[in-house]
Amino acid sequence: MRTPTVVKKPYIKLRRLFRKKKKAAGLPPGSLIYTGEKRVERVTVNLLDYRGNSVTDRKIVDPAECANLLQSDTVSWIDVEGLHETETIQKIGESLNLHPLVLEDILNVDQRAKMEEFEDYVYIVLKMFHLKENESEIAPEQVSIILGKNYVATFQEGIEGDTFQEIRERIRNNKGIITKMTPDYLVYSIIDSIIDSYFSVLEKFGDRIETLEEELVNNPEKQTLTEIYRLKREMLFLRKSVWPLREAISRLERGESELITRSTHLYLRDVYDHTINVLDTVETYRDMLSGMIDIYLSSISNRLNETMKYLALISTIFIPMTFIASIYGMNFEIMPELQWVHGYWFALGIMAMVGIAFLVYFKMKKWV
Amino acid sequence: MRTPTVVKKPYIKLRRLFRKKKKAAGLPPGSLIYTGEKRVERVTVNLLDYRGNSVTDRKIVDPAECANLLQSDTVSWIDVEGLHETETIQKIGESLNLHPLVLEDILNVDQRAKMEEFEDYVYIVLKMFHLKENESEIAPEQVSIILGKNYVATFQEGIEGDTFQEIRERIRNNKGIITKMTPDYLVYSIIDSIIDSYFSVLEKFGDRIETLEEELVNNPEKQTLTEIYRLKREMLFLRKSVWPLREAISRLERGESELITRSTHLYLRDVYDHTINVLDTVETYRDMLSGMIDIYLSSISNRLNETMKYLALISTIFIPMTFIASIYGMNFEIMPELQWVHGYWFALGIMAMVGIAFLVYFKMKKWV
Amino acid sequence: MRTPTVVKKPYIKLRRLFRKKKKAAGLPPGSLIYTGEKRVERVTVNLLDYRGNSVTDRKIVDPAECANLLQSDTVSWIDVEGLHETETIQKIGESLNLHPLVLEDILNVDQRAKMEEFEDYVYIVLKMFHLKENESEIAPEQVSIILGKNYVATFQEGIEGDTFQEIRERIRNNKGIITKMTPDYLVYSIIDSIIDSYFSVLEKFGDRIETLEEELVNNPEKQTLTEIYRLKREMLFLRKSVWPLREAISRLERGESELITRSTHLYLRDVYDHTINVLDTVETYRDMLSGMIDIYLSSISNRLNETMKYLALISTIFIPMTFIASIYGMNFEIMPELQWVHGYWFALGIMAMVGIAFLVYFKMKKWV
Amino acid sequence: MRTPTVVKKPYIKLRRLFRKKKKAAGLPPGSLIYTGEKRVERVTVNLLDYRGNSVTDRKIVDPAECANLLQSDTVSWIDVEGLHETETIQKIGESLNLHPLVLEDILNVDQRAKMEEFEDYVYIVLKMFHLKENESEIAPEQVSIILGKNYVATFQEGIEGDTFQEIRERIRNNKGIITKMTPDYLVYSIIDSIIDSYFSVLEKFGDRIETLEEELVNNPEKQTLTEIYRLKREMLFLRKSVWPLREAISRLERGESELITRSTHLYLRDVYDHTINVLDTVETYRDMLSGMIDIYLSSISNRLNETMKYLALISTIFIPMTFIASIYGMNFEIMPELQWVHGYWFALGIMAMVGIAFLVYFKMKKWV
Amino acid sequence: MRTPTVVKKPYIKLRRLFRKKKKAAGLPPGSLIYTGEKRVERVTVNLLDYRGNSVTDRKIVDPAECANLLQSDTVSWIDVEGLHETETIQKIGESLNLHPLVLEDILNVDQRAKMEEFEDYVYIVLKMFHLKENESEIAPEQVSIILGKNYVATFQEGIEGDTFQEIRERIRNNKGIITKMTPDYLVYSIIDSIIDSYFSVLEKFGDRIETLEEELVNNPEKQTLTEIYRLKREMLFLRKSVWPLREAISRLERGESELITRSTHLYLRDVYDHTINVLDTVETYRDMLSGMIDIYLSSISNRLNETMKYLALISTIFIPMTFIASIYGMNFEIMPELQWVHGYWFALGIMAMVGIAFLVYFKMKKWV
Repeated sequence: MRTPTVVKKPYIKLRRLFRKKKKAAGLPPGSLIYTGEKRVERVTVNLLDYRGNSVTDRKIVDPAECANLLQSDTVSWIDVEGLHETETIQKIGESLNLHPLVLEDILNVDQRAKMEEFEDYVYIVLKMFHLKENESEIAPEQVSIILGKNYVATFQEGIEGDTFQEIRERIRNNKGIITKMTPDYLVYSIIDSIIDSYFSVLEKFGDRIETLEEELVNNPEKQTLTEIYRLKREMLFLRKSVWPLREAISRLERGESELITRSTHLYLRDVYDHTINVLDTVETYRDMLSGMIDIYLSSISNRLNETMKYLALISTIFIPMTFIASIYGMNFEIMPELQWVHGYWFALGIMAMVGIAFLVYFKMKKWV
Repeated sequence: MRTPTVVKKPYIKLRRLFRKKKKAAGLPPGSLIYTGEKRVERVTVNLLDYRGNSVTDRKIVDPAECANLLQSDTVSWIDVEGLHETETIQKIGESLNLHPLVLEDILNVDQRAKMEEFEDYVYIVLKMFHLKENESEIAPEQVSIILGKNYVATFQEGIEGDTFQEIRERIRNNKGIITKMTPDYLVYSIIDSIIDSYFSVLEKFGDRIETLEEELVNNPEKQTLTEIYRLKREMLFLRKSVWPLREAISRLERGESELITRSTHLYLRDVYDHTINVLDTVETYRDMLSGMIDIYLSSISNRLNETMKYLALISTIFIPMTFIASIYGMNFEIMPELQWVHGYWFALGIMAMVGIAFLVYFKMKKWV
Repeated sequence: MRTPTVVKKPYIKLRRLFRKKKKAAGLPPGSLIYTGEKRVERVTVNLLDYRGNSVTDRKIVDPAECANLLQSDTVSWIDVEGLHETETIQKIGESLNLHPLVLEDILNVDQRAKMEEFEDYVYIVLKMFHLKENESEIAPEQVSIILGKNYVATFQEGIEGDTFQEIRERIRNNKGIITKMTPDYLVYSIIDSIIDSYFSVLEKFGDRIETLEEELVNNPEKQTLTEIYRLKREMLFLRKSVWPLREAISRLERGESELITRSTHLYLRDVYDHTINVLDTVETYRDMLSGMIDIYLSSISNRLNETMKYLALISTIFIPMTFIASIYGMNFEIMPELQWVHGYWFALGIMAMVGIAFLVYFKMKKWV
Repeated sequence: MRTPTVVKKPYIKLRRLFRKKKKAAGLPPGSLIYTGEKRVERVTVNLLDYRGNSVTDRKIVDPAECANLLQSDTVSWIDVEGLHETETIQKIGESLNLHPLVLEDILNVDQRAKMEEFEDYVYIVLKMFHLKENESEIAPEQVSIILGKNYVATFQEGIEGDTFQEIRERIRNNKGIITKMTPDYLVYSIIDSIIDSYFSVLEKFGDRIETLEEELVNNPEKQTLTEIYRLKREMLFLRKSVWPLREAISRLERGESELITRSTHLYLRDVYDHTINVLDTVETYRDMLSGMIDIYLSSISNRLNETMKYLALISTIFIPMTFIASIYGMNFEIMPELQWVHGYWFALGIMAMVGIAFLVYFKMKKWV
Repeated sequence: MRTPTVVKKPYIKLRRLFRKKKKAAGLPPGSLIYTGEKRVERVTVNLLDYRGNSVTDRKIVDPAECANLLQSDTVSWIDVEGLHETETIQKIGESLNLHPLVLEDILNVDQRAKMEEFEDYVYIVLKMFHLKENESEIAPEQVSIILGKNYVATFQEGIEGDTFQEIRERIRNNKGIITKMTPDYLVYSIIDSIIDSYFSVLEKFGDRIETLEEELVNNPEKQTLTEIYRLKREMLFLRKSVWPLREAISRLERGESELITRSTHLYLRDVYDHTINVLDTVETYRDMLSGMIDIYLSSISNRLNETMKYLALISTIFIPMTFIASIYGMNFEIMPELQWVHGYWFALGIMAMVGIAFLVYFKMKKWV
């Protein structure tokens, strides 16, 4: 008999829902301070320069070099992985003429998804999701995208391996129409592949919910509740991330920026539909999980009460029998039954009958 | 005495709420991949070509043939049943000049209902519902509709038999006004018959809810909860499907596409009203089911507690009687009652009186 | 001891929340099929023709006659009671030039309240409510109103007696301003008297809620819950009906139809305010009923638990006393107390003391 | 031991939430019927006529007199207290040229707060609140305000003493800027003082909630729930009243009526902010009260269960001890312990040990 | 055994949610009455006058002096700490030409956050938050900001030390761009630093929630509930404060006032995003806390019920054993077992077997 503890596994850490803003409150706006986790690896800056069939693929060592790309007539994709070397980021920002507030937002990895139009470029920030190894927690990674006239710059926290590998491959191998299109199509491809990562996460969660529902039916255990609660928490987190994204993409699609060509609008509308789909699914999962918690609580409580009922039934059968036995345990001098030859068997018989009568009565009442 | 399990029948499968997107995340947009279930039957492409009295009805073997229909001055209804042969679909799409994204959407059977205007055609996608044989689950089937200048193309998953049989009959037999109207009226007829299928489903569910309510009143069983939960889940699913449909039809009705004639707007308004009616009913059912869950839980818990009360009452009557018996079971040398001639009957009498007194007291308290 | 059943009276029928659409799904739009209950009485068509002091009041036998009224310069009120003779309705519709969809809507008595402007007329459909004899259920009756240039046509299901008797009287006796006004004022009067019927229903429900609250305070019975649940259900139903009505009247008031004169707008605004008032009251009642369910459940459960507590208290007092008695029932050869002259009384005394001590302790703890 | 009744004090009357509309449903619109409570006192009509320093203050005996005030160039404030003499009200209405619907609304004291612009005047109706003596119920009083070109007419139900005394004093003593301003400023002052009365009511309720929270912490009694429920009900009522007021004042502020001068708009904006503040507070109180009900229910139920646990602990300690005693009460011929000299003490010792062992075990489990 | 009290620590005071409006209801509008707490310290008025490199920093003794600042061509920041000397505030207000209603709002420290444009200046009022020493309550401090053509005036309640110290330092040391900018940039900096204070508060609360979640998992204590309830209450309070702020900043950003330069709009948009982020976090925390309350209640109730189950198990094992003992305690003359040599051991063996059988049975049922 152990002390009953309702939940055993530790909950997921809360910190993730609200990453610490390390900037001391009150610092001047525009201060460049990276708020994510510190890493040892160096920040890498990859350049993919393409136009039709010609593709250049190399690392950028001197951030100031980026300024040259603004003049070239090819599409340049500057992909920065890792944000922890603020100086590098700042230099890139300066050579691309980014507003200080944009740089601050790129480094503050607790940004709400948004889209902002500036004179020369459009700034988009959103979250990418990776499933952790335990498959029940999601790790967010902030991605900032700058869409300029002839370049695209992406800034990733660099938590996971090369997420845009697939797009890069398509460009290198000149697959699909991507190399024939303007930079906005590249931005669309990036956002599309990020939204796709949401679907993978939701699929995994869908599987877990399915499994939990079956557990709930067959054998609700104590950790089932913890699991449901944990998933509901992740849904809260996802909703918080995707809700503003919906608006950001909607603004991008309906936006008047000249940087986004007419043909891309159609693609953005498609991405917008996917985002709504993600939101709908998240909401449906939340509703289902809430319903599951209610069912769980009532089923656990019912199971316990059923146990209590069975225990009470057992007691209730024995108590009258004990009463009869104690009658014949009385010491009155004159108790006729005690002298009967078969008195003992008679008493046992009565007890058995009382016991059976109660049992039958309980059966009739459907209590057993 | 069996181990109490709260629910016995397995819940409906969850997968349906979120069908797996088989496309690997990150594939280039426009990739044609069918995401529904694989089927063995061949995809069939029916053509119904009509104008006034003249009606042609045949199968299309070569998808490229469709291109010719664009020039004809009759209304051509190309009805594709089955989506699992992506090549066929692609060829039809190409001969009708459809945008790659539209083709992708047609094949991805987890689409949100939507309406999109293109230059030459309007694309509408929505869900049709069939009740499974067990009558408590709904099977969704995605229907994509292309409305062109002089043709209508419909793409069904082909799960159930010919759903539009009735419309086809009307055209063949030249019943009603359909053969005198433009293609948009055909589109309206198709959507109307799909919405009608929602009403049939809701009617069936209404019947079930009615039955469940009576069960709830007379004899709430454990599977009653499972049933209620299951229905609530279906409502979640229906709402998720119908909510965007409302907007899609509203946009269709208010739309500025020249493909939709003035007289059809009136009919679309009617369909719009039906959609709202479906939504209202779904919401009302959800509210009712939620209320039923509360009533169920409280009635089950009350029933259990009433049982406990009766058991406790029985024990509580016997315990004082046993106490009296055990008094006369004491072995004191001097216990006057023990020598009384009628001592035994006196003791039994006292016990009976105590028992009856408690019973009367409980009756007065209305506990029995 | 009866098996505890939580609710005894049958719930109201569900069917009413969603009346069966008898039209087979997939029939051509515009099919005229009456979806209400079949009745034996004949459909009656009354005509009230008035202008200032001159009033004609007669039955219409040939529906085609209605066409003539369109030319007259008096206000003609065609009041149709009973919808089950579809042919009659169809003929009236044709002679008034009504759109087939309008006729379909008139006959389908499960319409959502709405207002639709056509070229020559305005179509309004809404629900009227009658309390059934048991005073706790409401019977809906659909009323369709056609407002033409110089006529008004009303179509009632004809469930209850002449509901518009009072308006008719006012016209016949030339009371108030009604006979001096255009047909739109008559429409306003009809809608106003329908909304008034909502207030009567809500007043009755208000009385019931009041009674139930007092029951809840003094003596919550099992059927109290059924009653509350039933009322909440009626509120769901009312809300479903009144919510779209609000929008319909709002559109009527703000509408641009030339059929509605400026002075009538003011009156419609008043009716609109009443509708909002009805909605507010329905919402408030729903909130109150939800609160009452919570209070009910907790009070029933508390009452049961209190009973359990008292029973447990009784047992807990007797168990230690029985323990003492059983000590002196042991058969050890050497038990000094057994030989004491007053041993028996001593033992009884101890038992009494233990019993009293526990009682006092429980009193101190405020458990009794 | 009394039958446990959960609530003792009667709830507040429900009637107030929906005052009976005494007008028979179906009366012609514009019928003047007072729907409030009948009173014996006479209706009084006070006139306050001012412009700069000159102030006239007298009673109006003949309602027709009001017509003259329309021509004067002073600001005339006609304040009617008591609405139960419909003829007087009607005469005033006629002399001020009010629309029949406005008069009907003035007399129907169950109006939703609203603001309506007419050609010559603006009509505003809202509720004033008085705390009843028991300090936990609010009594509503309807106030109608007519703002004309050079007059203001107010109609109060007259439940409480002179509510606008303070404003009257300011005018009489020429305090503040009121006598220099146009009538719209007077209307603003009246509304402002009414909203102030909401704050007083909310402050009182805030105090009660605070007290209840402390009761909840220290000693939740059964009537605590009744109190919380009662307060929540009052919040429902307040919200129902204030919600439409918000819109009415917003329309007044943004309105285009020439009767409201530019400088007054600023003041109205201030009143609007106060109304929002009232609404926010009402919502916050509702949320708090809901939370308190949950805490209350769980704390009551926990307290009961704790009691049950202690009772069960007591029983559970004595039952094994009784078992041991009953072993030595068996009548076997050969039971070695019975012959032991210290057998009795040995048995008592074992019992004591078992009892103590259980106690210690329970302590370890933290059950005691 | 102590009387079980569910909560021990006193709740936070309610007063804070609704600070008493000390102004007697009905006072003329524009009355200057300070509604915050009285303080002994003197009100201090600091002036910071800057333009580029030249910075003047001094105390203002005569409030009338402020009028001169309106003419200077430097940016003047008048910072008033403490509001309890209404005369000083009034004089400053007059010399800055503020509207009486603005002055009233500055002194009434229970203002809803808002932004109001006047001809010469913009008025912004919002709340700043300090964590009290116990780290679980927040103390609000109202800050009013006046943005004029070449000055900024801030009015703080003065509860905590110099909150804007950091901004002042930046100006004094000519750090960042602040001294080169117009007064609207200063206003932005102030608002930004206030919003930053929200983040600090939320971070602290996030930590507490995290700790509470772990407590909930490992060892839910009674005060855990109090803590959760308290935090939820603070969230209610925060939401009530931040919700209107969102709108105020949005209006500031989109506003047309000439006092706000184009470049500042960008910064305001950034602040707006932060505000939304705060709101999202508050809502997420509320959802989490609600979920935690449910989990808490169910885990406490389960723990109690588990205890009851164990107690019932113990009783249920001993009751049948006692029954057997009482059988052999019967006094029948002929009971064969009693004469058996090993009868006693046989009986003990049967009892042990019965006890063990029940134990095994319970184990099998997983009740132990």
